[in-house]
Amino acid sequence: MENGERIWTVYLAGEIHSDWRERIAAGITGAGLPVVLTSPVTDHAASDDCGVTILGLEQDKFWHDHKGAGVNAVRTYTLLREADIVVVRFGEKYRQWNAAFDAGQAAALDTPLITLHPPEHDHALKEIDGAALATCREPEQVVAILRYAIEGAL
Amino acid sequence: MENGERIWTVYLAGEIHSDWRERIAAGITGAGLPVVLTSPVTDHAASDDCGVTILGLEQDKFWHDHKGAGVNAVRTYTLLREADIVVVRFGEKYRQWNAAFDAGQAAALDTPLITLHPPEHDHALKEIDGAALATCREPEQVVAILRYAIEGAL
Amino acid sequence: MENGERIWTVYLAGEIHSDWRERIAAGITGAGLPVVLTSPVTDHAASDDCGVTILGLEQDKFWHDHKGAGVNAVRTYTLLREADIVVVRFGEKYRQWNAAFDAGQAAALDTPLITLHPPEHDHALKEIDGAALATCREPEQVVAILRYAIEGAL
Amino acid sequence: MENGERIWTVYLAGEIHSDWRERIAAGITGAGLPVVLTSPVTDHAASDDCGVTILGLEQDKFWHDHKGAGVNAVRTYTLLREADIVVVRFGEKYRQWNAAFDAGQAAALDTPLITLHPPEHDHALKEIDGAALATCREPEQVVAILRYAIEGAL
Amino acid sequence: MENGERIWTVYLAGEIHSDWRERIAAGITGAGLPVVLTSPVTDHAASDDCGVTILGLEQDKFWHDHKGAGVNAVRTYTLLREADIVVVRFGEKYRQWNAAFDAGQAAALDTPLITLHPPEHDHALKEIDGAALATCREPEQVVAILRYAIEGAL
Amino acid sequence: MENGERIWTVYLAGEIHSDWRERIAAGITGAGLPVVLTSPVTDHAASDDCGVTILGLEQDKFWHDHKGAGVNAVRTYTLLREADIVVVRFGEKYRQWNAAFDAGQAAALDTPLITLHPPEHDHALKEIDGAALATCREPEQVVAILRYAIEGAL
Amino acid sequence: MENGERIWTVYLAGEIHSDWRERIAAGITGAGLPVVLTSPVTDHAASDDCGVTILGLEQDKFWHDHKGAGVNAVRTYTLLREADIVVVRFGEKYRQWNAAFDAGQAAALDTPLITLHPPEHDHALKEIDGAALATCREPEQVVAILRYAIEGAL
Amino acid sequence: MENGERIWTVYLAGEIHSDWRERIAAGITGAGLPVVLTSPVTDHAASDDCGVTILGLEQDKFWHDHKGAGVNAVRTYTLLREADIVVVRFGEKYRQWNAAFDAGQAAALDTPLITLHPPEHDHALKEIDGAALATCREPEQVVAILRYAIEGAL
Repeated sequence: MENGERIWTVYLAGEIHSDWRERIAAGITGAGLPVVLTSPVTDHAASDDCGVTILGLEQDKFWHDHKGAGVNAVRTYTLLREADIVVVRFGEKYRQWNAAFDAGQAAALDTPLITLHPPEHDHALKEIDGAALATCREPEQVVAILRYAIEGAL
Repeated sequence: MENGERIWTVYLAGEIHSDWRERIAAGITGAGLPVVLTSPVTDHAASDDCGVTILGLEQDKFWHDHKGAGVNAVRTYTLLREADIVVVRFGEKYRQWNAAFDAGQAAALDTPLITLHPPEHDHALKEIDGAALATCREPEQVVAILRYAIEGAL
Repeated sequence: MENGERIWTVYLAGEIHSDWRERIAAGITGAGLPVVLTSPVTDHAASDDCGVTILGLEQDKFWHDHKGAGVNAVRTYTLLREADIVVVRFGEKYRQWNAAFDAGQAAALDTPLITLHPPEHDHALKEIDGAALATCREPEQVVAILRYAIEGAL
Repeated sequence: MENGERIWTVYLAGEIHSDWRERIAAGITGAGLPVVLTSPVTDHAASDDCGVTILGLEQDKFWHDHKGAGVNAVRTYTLLREADIVVVRFGEKYRQWNAAFDAGQAAALDTPLITLHPPEHDHALKEIDGAALATCREPEQVVAILRYAIEGAL
Repeated sequence: MENGERIWTVYLAGEIHSDWRERIAAGITGAGLPVVLTSPVTDHAASDDCGVTILGLEQDKFWHDHKGAGVNAVRTYTLLREADIVVVRFGEKYRQWNAAFDAGQAAALDTPLITLHPPEHDHALKEIDGAALATCREPEQVVAILRYAIEGAL
Repeated sequence: MENGERIWTVYLAGEIHSDWRERIAAGITGAGLPVVLTSPVTDHAASDDCGVTILGLEQDKFWHDHKGAGVNAVRTYTLLREADIVVVRFGEKYRQWNAAFDAGQAAALDTPLITLHPPEHDHALKEIDGAALATCREPEQVVAILRYAIEGAL
Repeated sequence: MENGERIWTVYLAGEIHSDWRERIAAGITGAGLPVVLTSPVTDHAASDDCGVTILGLEQDKFWHDHKGAGVNAVRTYTLLREADIVVVRFGEKYRQWNAAFDAGQAAALDTPLITLHPPEHDHALKEIDGAALATCREPEQVVAILRYAIEGAL
Repeated sequence: MENGERIWTVYLAGEIHSDWRERIAAGITGAGLPVVLTSPVTDHAASDDCGVTILGLEQDKFWHDHKGAGVNAVRTYTLLREADIVVVRFGEKYRQWNAAFDAGQAAALDTPLITLHPPEHDHALKEIDGAALATCREPEQVVAILRYAIEGAL
């Protein structure tokens, strides 16, 4: 049974301060999987300032952020909705409400969801993990799931 | 023009450690608005333990939480999806990822979303505020929006 | 064949400077039709200022308007989507882009659309009329359509 | 992270009397972005007369327009619904209700919407801008948003 | 097990020249079933002329019919889409393309469909019968199906 | 917070040879919950013969069954789709493929699903349990979940 | 503005006894349009007998037809739903209820619909024409609409 | 009429202990049909253990199975939903509830469904066969249906 030609699109949402996306990308390359990875813009400064840089400065920080959120959403809205699978990573730092927001969108869109986080967040993430098909601790487990899903191999 | 008979259903998601739901309920009663308020179970202990209490104990805390998330979702899934409006409150304590998760569901379901939080969370919540129709600081502002939306009165 | 118990919800969008809504309401009352009429807030000043009145002043007029648009949308989004029929009136004054915007929403939602405007706007409104089931010149024609649709009587 | 292979489809709705579409096209070519631009037929005379030219003359101008609207809709309905992003331009001349109608369709379809217009229309367009992810003043800002959305570069 | 309070809405589409709707209505009354019957306007002359009567005369018969079709659709679109069950009757006379058109809508909307026609039409109706849950010969069989579906009684 | 007026509709699918539906009904009555229970026709003989009894005998058993399946589907299709919650019971006897079929429909419709079965079926039902929000062993646990979901009480 | 790479899929439903499909195909080839034409199986005998030929003979003609309808639907259901545009032709002979059934599906799916028939059927087809974006008399007009929709040329 | 370039995706669900998938694959190759076959992982041991192998061991068999169901669903959810046609095979051994669960999903998603099973299961599968467009006894009949659907040839 050959599914090889199918390209799987996987959206990598959440934490942007560790190398988890690179580890997943390396794993996919290593395994030769037909996967396209997408993600929000992971350059923190660009993501914060894209709105005012393109559309003009704001004095009020709220509207500075609002413009940035709109411009970022042009990208994230499109990529998240076309993904076959959404992976959401929760890390150590910051509030990361946006990661949980993306997980909620994936759940409501009925897109298969995989969470990735250390055990210390298990209790705080129980509803999101409950809506996920799998909870991983390491990026390599995400690669293993993708390899199994695509090739049927363990 | 008479919209008076319509009952508006408003889901109050998020923080469970302050009296914001009571303040909204009091405001609605005071204004005589035709609003039914719904919410997740706000008894923290019940919400944590409902799964194992009903379905049997688990040794592993992950599955303890997982069972609870499932049982809570029977309620929250149904009420969130039938709401006309979803209000999400972010407070001072805890991670509150579940609040952001509910906001993501509302956004993907295209249900009007109102956020409620102090200014210090503005930056961390910029994407969620960007998807909301209004960002309030006080529960009484939520009541004022509902009164305006339903009765057209300021 | 008795459809009498059904309540029909009709959203009256567009122009707010003539008495067309009152004439439709009077016609419905006169004919005893089981119709609930809904509409945006038709108090121009309230509609313009609801955002800043409830949520706080803005120095920049763009954000003043933006806040108002959000608060108004809590009402209009909900009522437009639950309408059985959307009637959109185009009048003499102002740009009335919001009327056309509401017509576009009704068309995409596949909600039966009736337009109401004088012949001099026919050419400018040809796409919107093309998406409508009927184009009326007078509010009483809207009432006649509703009476026929509900009671089958001419 | 490589999204380069993805082709983004952007529908350019609205005003047909200035060179804004050409400026966006030039910007996209200059930046080498993987974007396909679509639009309604922008030849004003063809757009007005396509119905009667293909399907036969009408004596009544209303039906002349009606036939044209139907034939144009075969194109616009299809292209608007498959767009990843809808850009709507409002200019100086004419009523441009069709532009607002297209914006309403994009909003109801939940397709990311970008508006493009001078500040003097801000108040009249507040609901449409409120439903948009970004409001631009110049076509080059639209290109910058697309470049950021696709490549993550400012 | 009590389903008694539920009101079932059944749309009776198709042929308007025999008494089949009356026989179904009588059967429902006789059996005391909680059913609301809806239908298009069955007064042939009113159905043909409603457009021009309300909206103004047309010289061209095509547009005379077109206006009528639009006004009738305000009713039929709404009632067909809210029906729990659609019954379509094909009789002896006329082309009855509208009956088949309504059946196609019900099929695409995934609404349970029951057909009602004599055996001589079986071959011509094979695709429509193939999309139906039951094919009846007599109106009383429709009543029997409704009674079974609602009360579980044979 | 008062949700009391809401009526919850719960579809009880699956096994028809034990008293589990009666036990759930008794539990709901005992707890005074605002729940309407719906179900397929549970009279085995009626369910098998409804097609030919109403629509005429068939010589071929396949078409005998086919007619019955159609008539039963008029009921089950409607009730399953309008349920807030679907409970599926798997028992000791028969193949019960129809129970699993109903579970699949609930899963694809994104309706909250609760399974009810003894532990010996756990392995064979792992995918269905995986799509469910809770797996119960006794009908009283279903009642407890409904009570918690509706009243928030353990 | 270049839409050239887009492939348009056009489903040609209805009458199978004249050469209208060939004339449309020739016109498309002549104009070099990027169109893929799809259709039901137009071999009348194959279409009637495919069910029993593949799945085994039936004694009862009703089930003979029923099997054929199912097998044909595997093709038509898929092709009709993926079409950008549905053209439905009504000719002189037979009941052609299946053509009207396909038109109803296209209407409910909100797929642009073009009808093709001589004027003598106008009255009988008024509801279907009312749901169509254009009514053609000759296949070459369908080609002209496609050419205009795709290339913007008259 | 040329549909040849279209690739048809067919999901083969159900029984994994006989060679029916291989026979369908051989038939498709032999007939040169443009079909991509997809399926769940058919290696029984891998399918049972994928969860714990990738995500870590579980002591409780229920959670062992639950993890496996989640990981398998990443694959099956995606492939089932993108299939043009779902074929479900019921064989001699095991409960095969998962096959019926997949059939239920296909039915609710309105994806054309073909069942494949011996006559002794007809009665137990009557609802699932009732929702299918065809019931086959041999894999070669599935191939013949696909050939007819794609090429129109018997």
